[in-house]
Amino acid sequence: MGIYEIVSQFGIQEILWQESIDKHDVVCDEYDGVVFYRVTKKIGVLEKGAIITEEGVVLDFPRIARILHLENGLHKIYSHPFYVEEKVDGYNLRIVRIQGRVLAFSRGAYVCPFSTDRVTDFIDVKSVFDENPGLIICGEFAGPDNPYNIEHPPYVKEDVRFFAFDLMRVNKHGSIPIEERYRLFDLYRMPTVRRFGRFSISDMPVLKNIVKELDEAGCEGIVIKPTHPAEKLVKYVTLGSCLRDLRVTAPLMAESMSEFFTHRIIRAAMFINENIHSLNSGICSQLGEALLQPVFESVKKVAKGEVIEEKFLLRFKEEKNIQRMIDHLYRCKVKFEVLSKNKVNDYWHVKFVRKCYASYEILQKHLDGSAHVD
Amino acid sequence: MGIYEIVSQFGIQEILWQESIDKHDVVCDEYDGVVFYRVTKKIGVLEKGAIITEEGVVLDFPRIARILHLENGLHKIYSHPFYVEEKVDGYNLRIVRIQGRVLAFSRGAYVCPFSTDRVTDFIDVKSVFDENPGLIICGEFAGPDNPYNIEHPPYVKEDVRFFAFDLMRVNKHGSIPIEERYRLFDLYRMPTVRRFGRFSISDMPVLKNIVKELDEAGCEGIVIKPTHPAEKLVKYVTLGSCLRDLRVTAPLMAESMSEFFTHRIIRAAMFINENIHSLNSGICSQLGEALLQPVFESVKKVAKGEVIEEKFLLRFKEEKNIQRMIDHLYRCKVKFEVLSKNKVNDYWHVKFVRKCYASYEILQKHLDGSAHVD
Repeated sequence: MGIYEIVSQFGIQEILWQESIDKHDVVCDEYDGVVFYRVTKKIGVLEKGAIITEEGVVLDFPRIARILHLENGLHKIYSHPFYVEEKVDGYNLRIVRIQGRVLAFSRGAYVCPFSTDRVTDFIDVKSVFDENPGLIICGEFAGPDNPYNIEHPPYVKEDVRFFAFDLMRVNKHGSIPIEERYRLFDLYRMPTVRRFGRFSISDMPVLKNIVKELDEAGCEGIVIKPTHPAEKLVKYVTLGSCLRDLRVTAPLMAESMSEFFTHRIIRAAMFINENIHSLNSGICSQLGEALLQPVFESVKKVAKGEVIEEKFLLRFKEEKNIQRMIDHLYRCKVKFEVLSKNKVNDYWHVKFVRKCYASYEILQKHLDGSAHVD
Repeated sequence: MGIYEIVSQFGIQEILWQESIDKHDVVCDEYDGVVFYRVTKKIGVLEKGAIITEEGVVLDFPRIARILHLENGLHKIYSHPFYVEEKVDGYNLRIVRIQGRVLAFSRGAYVCPFSTDRVTDFIDVKSVFDENPGLIICGEFAGPDNPYNIEHPPYVKEDVRFFAFDLMRVNKHGSIPIEERYRLFDLYRMPTVRRFGRFSISDMPVLKNIVKELDEAGCEGIVIKPTHPAEKLVKYVTLGSCLRDLRVTAPLMAESMSEFFTHRIIRAAMFINENIHSLNSGICSQLGEALLQPVFESVKKVAKGEVIEEKFLLRFKEEKNIQRMIDHLYRCKVKFEVLSKNKVNDYWHVKFVRKCYASYEILQKHLDGSAHVD
């Protein structure tokens, strides 16, 4: 089937398609011989992040709405039972088979060469896709050794792991209903995020306890998923997650969106109000340290002429995917260097260092005494 | 002289003037029978904040550039001696006499009825303006009882005081040279900001000590003013000032510009790096408390259905100026109520409460469990 026919099934006329290509709202891309189109800006019903291939459309993975008050949020949203899963701190991927090739697509509809290289470590792709053509496995790659996220679940001690949490089908809006989804996860022994089970509003004390235990364990939070198709899914995060977010992003405060920080301070205050009820000086100190210590360290580093860096190690199965990952990081405008590359048992261990020049330059300007009007 | 003639002296053609009025880049205003034009958006050489009257133009008070590293900043900027003054935390006014009336103009070129009412408490306006027609006295009203600023110098224990720090002339760009300025301040016994004296780059240890003492005393910082006309003036603030800024603004974090917070955290880190050299846990706790405690208090307040409020007391000499101030606050879109009005000795004491509905509404939405995509 031609590309026009594919997109015409989504009500997109050829003229709109052509215009979208001209405006780069859809961009032709290629990975290892597989050609596809990335939607970079909404076209008709296709949202940013959708992937168009000759075999059909992989729709975007929708953003999940956030609630800042668990009890009131669940009361507002659900009158039917819902499922609760752990929210895992990693990066979101859609795993699909196109032209016989299993690819891992990022939210922005890029193929992530690292995740694509590693996905077969976690999923028996042959049986899954042979028996379920057109399936889309949505999940999180999470762990300390990944290219995008500094934070990770406390129980992933090294490397990355894959945690499936959703299933979609090519050309179809929405997820596969949750019971069917769980059946398929179990049938193929796919690793998934922790599933806490089915609850209803009256289970609030149990839910609060789950959140409390996740917070104590250093986990990010929960995602609540409806059983009724008219109800929406929402996420809710722990206090610890807010504090860790602040700490890992604060070294780059000068180049980051300021809202990143204030939103998490407000979330923290909301969490304390609902779950801890009073503010103790320990939490204030933690928050202050999470914000100030990393900025101070960055200032000291820049004062010594050192660029702020983030190091990460990636393990690859196939050597050729290392270069693909390097090319991908270049395209994503990440400034980095490869520090080393070694074969350790079955994996290529590649050490990268990301160079945060923007923060360096801003702080260097402050340090050299430049004046600015604010 | 007509208004066109006045502005034509600044190279503004009648057609540009008319266009600017049509676009509301200049707005006709009136205070107690005195008519003037407020420049709301740059027209030719007239910056936002300039005031055009039939007696001439009161130019805007220029923004002062900030340095985040005192030593390097001064080295970069000054090769000639400079004067150092205390930076007083208040609000900026230009005091002028128009049509025989002494008015206090805000930075936005509004007449502040409160400051206008009170200015004669601090300046012998008759002798100053009789002997110096066309003089513009620039200074800060500062103190705990003012309509705009929660922070104030520690040594102003109640009410407000006026601190002159600059002199300009109607129709003239730039300030009156600093020695002449100081001569006039002294001649008319005008209250001014603290003047630390004349220094040069080699006096760095003394300057650092001034900053240290100001920080310990709870003062905001310093303004450094050139003696050479080609050199610019800059400001530099203390660590304590950053922390206090965070604390007094954090209750309204939900409605504030997020940059307000991150800029001050970066300034704090820069100050610590230059002046304290190491980060101790006390500073981190202070910063954490300054940010989190007020947000938490706001959340608790809103959870009880209470609007976040800021109370302030103003003392007026003339009763009619109370209504003018009320009208001014309405125009500035401040939501407030008058709580009480009493004559105490020679002054009318008026208590106001500002109602911070925007923060209330945002936090209320979070608290009632609304979901949002971020």
